Amino acid sequence: MKSPVQVTITGAAGNIGYALAFRIASGQMLGEDQPVTLRLLEVPQSVATLGGLAMELEDCAFPLLHDVVLTDDLSVGFQDCNYALLIGAKPRTKDMQRSDLIADNGSIFAAQGRAINEHAARDIRVLVVGNPANTNALIAAANAPDINRRNFTAMTRLDHNRARTQVAIKAGHAVADVRQITVWGNHSSTQFPDLTHCLIDGTPAFELVSRDWADDDFIPTVQHRGTAIIEARGASSAASAANAAIDHMRNWALGTDEDDWVSMAIPSDEGHYGIDTDLVFSYPVVCKDGDYQVVTGLEVDDYMREKFVTTEQELVKERDIVAELLKPAG
Amino acid sequence: MKSPVQVTITGAAGNIGYALAFRIASGQMLGEDQPVTLRLLEVPQSVATLGGLAMELEDCAFPLLHDVVLTDDLSVGFQDCNYALLIGAKPRTKDMQRSDLIADNGSIFAAQGRAINEHAARDIRVLVVGNPANTNALIAAANAPDINRRNFTAMTRLDHNRARTQVAIKAGHAVADVRQITVWGNHSSTQFPDLTHCLIDGTPAFELVSRDWADDDFIPTVQHRGTAIIEARGASSAASAANAAIDHMRNWALGTDEDDWVSMAIPSDEGHYGIDTDLVFSYPVVCKDGDYQVVTGLEVDDYMREKFVTTEQELVKERDIVAELLKPAG
Repeated sequence: MKSPVQVTITGAAGNIGYALAFRIASGQMLGEDQPVTLRLLEVPQSVATLGGLAMELEDCAFPLLHDVVLTDDLSVGFQDCNYALLIGAKPRTKDMQRSDLIADNGSIFAAQGRAINEHAARDIRVLVVGNPANTNALIAAANAPDINRRNFTAMTRLDHNRARTQVAIKAGHAVADVRQITVWGNHSSTQFPDLTHCLIDGTPAFELVSRDWADDDFIPTVQHRGTAIIEARGASSAASAANAAIDHMRNWALGTDEDDWVSMAIPSDEGHYGIDTDLVFSYPVVCKDGDYQVVTGLEVDDYMREKFVTTEQELVKERDIVAELLKPAG
Repeated sequence: MKSPVQVTITGAAGNIGYALAFRIASGQMLGEDQPVTLRLLEVPQSVATLGGLAMELEDCAFPLLHDVVLTDDLSVGFQDCNYALLIGAKPRTKDMQRSDLIADNGSIFAAQGRAINEHAARDIRVLVVGNPANTNALIAAANAPDINRRNFTAMTRLDHNRARTQVAIKAGHAVADVRQITVWGNHSSTQFPDLTHCLIDGTPAFELVSRDWADDDFIPTVQHRGTAIIEARGASSAASAANAAIDHMRNWALGTDEDDWVSMAIPSDEGHYGIDTDLVFSYPVVCKDGDYQVVTGLEVDDYMREKFVTTEQELVKERDIVAELLKPAG
């Protein structure tokens, strides 16, 4: 049996954390031969609630669950952490501007970045789920100068999975038939779910569905799916968000399927596809041996370029709002 | 790829259903080569809520999820059903006698038994989770005369898993070291979590923990764990109950580990261990080739016999309360 790895979940007392913890402990994220210690981090007023979650984890008798640590202390929460799922973030309240939310949440991720820099394993892999996820990942990376920036990512896998299903339904195919779909850019309503290189059972998607359908139906459906879920459930996505986080981390750790890629929001430092080099931008990536590589060489036409620019500009604006949090501590 | 099997979840809009549906669709219950159609059954006033759950299932792009059916019609819900997880039951309200609850819930399970008899696959495997689970399973079986009674079971696996962890913690061992633990009888506070034949890393449990600890701490802790969870969470067990349901069904379908057994509440028709032959009683069982067999030949001393009688008597009383529901329809 391998040695246990340390997996940190922030905002663990929330609904995504509740859906996530059991699936990680069951082996679905890192494989059925990888023991885990769960480090569940919460704000002080929610640590008590974590007690019930810890009891239920005990009650599952998971053979892979080595230990559960409950804490409101960042230095404990990120101690030797190998995998961090940063879920916790403040929700937007009614009379709050989006820019205030971004700045407010940004300070949480700056503090977490500093704690990661000081306490985590040097090869920590970070997935940010809490919104605005891309910009929060950028902030965390900027505040962890001793950790490779590549290791800070944000989640667009839920969008990717949503896009996969929507085009499968439209084309009358099984989801498993859909390959090479991409979500580009920001995990927000400016994201670009892209069928340009998508294959459905080997056939180019645009031979099976129309470009008009993609523009008028598919793209807005995927972009606004989060809101539709809230309307249908009376609560935001929890289990499907947790599932996407599992998918993101499993692929990163254990590899992607051959002949396919997935969408991950990653630091754009390498400048692929002409994107500003200081953002966290979602790209098509393949994962192997615990690392990811951007899929390069895809043809980009004017239509795609325009979509890239829209979501890139939004990310630049978000970055401007949190500029103070991106400066290395003096 | 195998053909899809039909998996029915009743009360699917509840918290256990929410925790369960995603894990089944991900392949954890029936294996990663077994596609499933989920048939989600609810009372009419909750079918709308199922819409959100179905959307989130779509958003996971599970390759094994063949279809999702939402219904409040028993004949649709159990159509060709291969695996039924009967979760939905009325909770006890403040001024309600337990006997009223039993009778009230019993009629739900009588109706489900009739629908199963009429519409389900002949080899359906039924797991009752809704309380009082053992007696509800007895009722469902009695109302499905064309289905083998063996195929109606109730869940004591959550108790079994809880017992495993508690003794592992006390003995200072990993949960994976604990084998041959048994929960006998009713899924209620009269259950008998039994360490008599339990081995911890090959050593008899009672060489590592005392009989006094078992009597004064272990048994009451396991018996009343459900209440403790409610106190800690402010809500009843959901993810751990769903996990136990997964474990129960997976072992039944795919087999138990060698050199170990699990606890399942099953019809006592064969009279093992001298139990009344018309109850659903939890026994140690091994599963193989999609069937279960009671572990026979375990020595039963006076201490154990007394515990058996207590939980057996409770089940007989429950049976008396629902006697009308156990008569074959005229």
